[in-house]
Amino acid sequence: MSSAQKELTPPASPSLPQELAPAYPTLPRVVIIGGGFGGITAATSLARLPVEVVLIDKYNYHLFQPLLYQVATAALSPAEIAAPIRGILREQKNARVMLGHVTGIDTARRCVMLEERSVPYDTLIISTGVRNHYFGHDEWAQVAPGLKTIADARALRHKMLGAFERAESETDLEERRRLMTFVVIGGGATGVEMAGAIAEVARVAITQDFRNIDTKMSRVVLIEAGTRLLPSMPEKLSAAAKRSLEKLGVEVWLGKYVTDCDSGGVTLGAERIGCRTIVWAAGIIGSPAASWLNAAHDREGRVIVEPDLTVAGHPEIFVIGDTAMVRDKAGNPLPGVAPAAKQEAHYVAKLIKARLEGKPPPKPFRYINLGNLATIGRSAAVADFGFVRFSGLLAWLGWGLIHIYFLIGFRSRFIVAITWLWSYFTFQRGARLIMSDEPEA
Amino acid sequence: MSSAQKELTPPASPSLPQELAPAYPTLPRVVIIGGGFGGITAATSLARLPVEVVLIDKYNYHLFQPLLYQVATAALSPAEIAAPIRGILREQKNARVMLGHVTGIDTARRCVMLEERSVPYDTLIISTGVRNHYFGHDEWAQVAPGLKTIADARALRHKMLGAFERAESETDLEERRRLMTFVVIGGGATGVEMAGAIAEVARVAITQDFRNIDTKMSRVVLIEAGTRLLPSMPEKLSAAAKRSLEKLGVEVWLGKYVTDCDSGGVTLGAERIGCRTIVWAAGIIGSPAASWLNAAHDREGRVIVEPDLTVAGHPEIFVIGDTAMVRDKAGNPLPGVAPAAKQEAHYVAKLIKARLEGKPPPKPFRYINLGNLATIGRSAAVADFGFVRFSGLLAWLGWGLIHIYFLIGFRSRFIVAITWLWSYFTFQRGARLIMSDEPEA
Repeated sequence: MSSAQKELTPPASPSLPQELAPAYPTLPRVVIIGGGFGGITAATSLARLPVEVVLIDKYNYHLFQPLLYQVATAALSPAEIAAPIRGILREQKNARVMLGHVTGIDTARRCVMLEERSVPYDTLIISTGVRNHYFGHDEWAQVAPGLKTIADARALRHKMLGAFERAESETDLEERRRLMTFVVIGGGATGVEMAGAIAEVARVAITQDFRNIDTKMSRVVLIEAGTRLLPSMPEKLSAAAKRSLEKLGVEVWLGKYVTDCDSGGVTLGAERIGCRTIVWAAGIIGSPAASWLNAAHDREGRVIVEPDLTVAGHPEIFVIGDTAMVRDKAGNPLPGVAPAAKQEAHYVAKLIKARLEGKPPPKPFRYINLGNLATIGRSAAVADFGFVRFSGLLAWLGWGLIHIYFLIGFRSRFIVAITWLWSYFTFQRGARLIMSDEPEA
Repeated sequence: MSSAQKELTPPASPSLPQELAPAYPTLPRVVIIGGGFGGITAATSLARLPVEVVLIDKYNYHLFQPLLYQVATAALSPAEIAAPIRGILREQKNARVMLGHVTGIDTARRCVMLEERSVPYDTLIISTGVRNHYFGHDEWAQVAPGLKTIADARALRHKMLGAFERAESETDLEERRRLMTFVVIGGGATGVEMAGAIAEVARVAITQDFRNIDTKMSRVVLIEAGTRLLPSMPEKLSAAAKRSLEKLGVEVWLGKYVTDCDSGGVTLGAERIGCRTIVWAAGIIGSPAASWLNAAHDREGRVIVEPDLTVAGHPEIFVIGDTAMVRDKAGNPLPGVAPAAKQEAHYVAKLIKARLEGKPPPKPFRYINLGNLATIGRSAAVADFGFVRFSGLLAWLGWGLIHIYFLIGFRSRFIVAITWLWSYFTFQRGARLIMSDEPEA
């Protein structure tokens, strides 16, 4: 074949996405999908190992999800609970960050497929979290946004503040009542925290802002299908949470099933609550990891993993965090909380280190429960540390300290601490902005 | 006519929007359109007068526009430069706030028309500010966003950070160069501040965040059609601003006209700069006040007002701030800055007070120039206080103190001060989030 002919030959696979070239050709590459608690911890735990780390996320920031409800209720700004991933991994020379949407995983070629590129891996860690799940009623997503992303939080804030604005200029009393009714569906930690925060906004923070409506007359309803709130906590704390919420004026409805959600309200069988703001905190489903891998998964879409967190038949693929179905020693599924994801990430890093050093692998993963916390309004919370359980102001202070401590980045910690102290003493909420370009009122 | 017949008769004007009922039926009503510096100052200046105040804005927040470029360049969060209008006027019992879009003004009936309501007034104050103006090239707005709203600032931040993300994974060197080129059009205060801030982000703040690109190689070009930057300031300070920008690596192009903007770059006659991020800081135009009032206006759409800031033939209508064309004693138009709007608002309040008390009106409005400031990057600025002019670090400190002082709300002041100190000592920018749900890379 002459050289002129060769030039005319098209490349072998013109449709194949461009492959990411190795930064350290002699080192094995660990690819991490997801920049949440699991993914970031995995990346930093691999800092001193002779591997090249590539972290892929669709956003450029790590989000401190446990405080997302505070963005939704206008206490914090998005930037106060989010840190740029590049900033977190800035000093870690063996790591790099890619912004991109994963479209699939080619497990045979060991390659993560993005929209326009592909990233080969030697080891893969999947930590892609969960999404809202509407139990087959995806149409509810429009009227009942969940609380998983900054966009969700901003949409909820906009809805809640916009409802008060519209109530202020509404003359129809029935419609005004609907605008001033807020329904939270789901009595887990997110639902409890959200209901408490909305009640506080309505009954304390903005009472003097309006002239035609009395925001203290707002109605906040928390609906839980089970028999108690915070089902993963001891019953005593569930009862304490219920009492605290009722003190804030929240109606707690237990054992009620939502049968329909629309823009005018929530239907529970024969009952109906007219309202304009609905918060979905009832169901989540694992990210598409199971379908990417064609792996076994549970009803919530979580990948069922081996005792060492690998996927059956793929010792080079780990799934951690909410995306994985992991059981504790009693056989119960681990809760979808940050400490579980972080412990799993540390375990995976230890296992990768052992493999690199040719040592025997560590014992199967064991979750250590460091406690459970949920906060209710401005100065109450329930805490369960296993050996000690308490509620009230002390739990709230503990909750605040722990959350500030685990916020990534000193600046965030510092600014959030000051913002909270400020709003604690003044009852003000600083981030009360309706950001949409087209206000609803 | 029988009573049964009467019930069937439709209301007189079914299409007429619902009128806002007076809160204090015995008091005259002052309606203010716009919650910027002029509108808020007018509202608070009327606090002790026997009038009912209604402030209408399309957003629920007052925006501290002079710091908007810091949101665009990821130094501050939107909530740090915005304060809810209801919060500002919370204690002022004679004032209420309406969220709404003004569609027109019925000067004969003395009524402001909103989309679904109408608001009758006895006195009207219009302070609706300005919008970006593309000199007949509205299609440029798509590729060259201005900097007037929080949405603008967020769009620019997203564009700038997204360009670096795309450059990091771009292998075509020509495209990478375009992605790392930033063109700012317009050499007024906004353009100068924006160019300095972008240069600082690229050359200092994010240099260690990327692995494939050297952000210090970014190119920032500031284009001004006139012969010098900051045309409203003395020549010596224009030269100082140019030197400071060049020290930060900004190319300053003077006397060049932009003839086209598209998604691939900027054309200036025969010259062409390939780039993916363009900032429009070149032109503004008054809000539609002139067309609402059918009043005389200048080329920039500003309403030409009488010496007492009323509209000719309408002593009950005042136009203030950027929306009005007001001249100083030398005959030059007043600059579109916050102090001018505030002084005009105070004047109008004084005039309304005199009218209520049956006293003679105050002398025609006179603007007192309190100085002019522009900042360039992390520690330089130029200041012109008339009697004293200076540049450098001292001007920068003065700029910082003055801006923090005038930020509305103690919380904002405090948090901004801390955020600035933090970024001054660490070169970090905390609000480096790309918020769109669909990242560009």
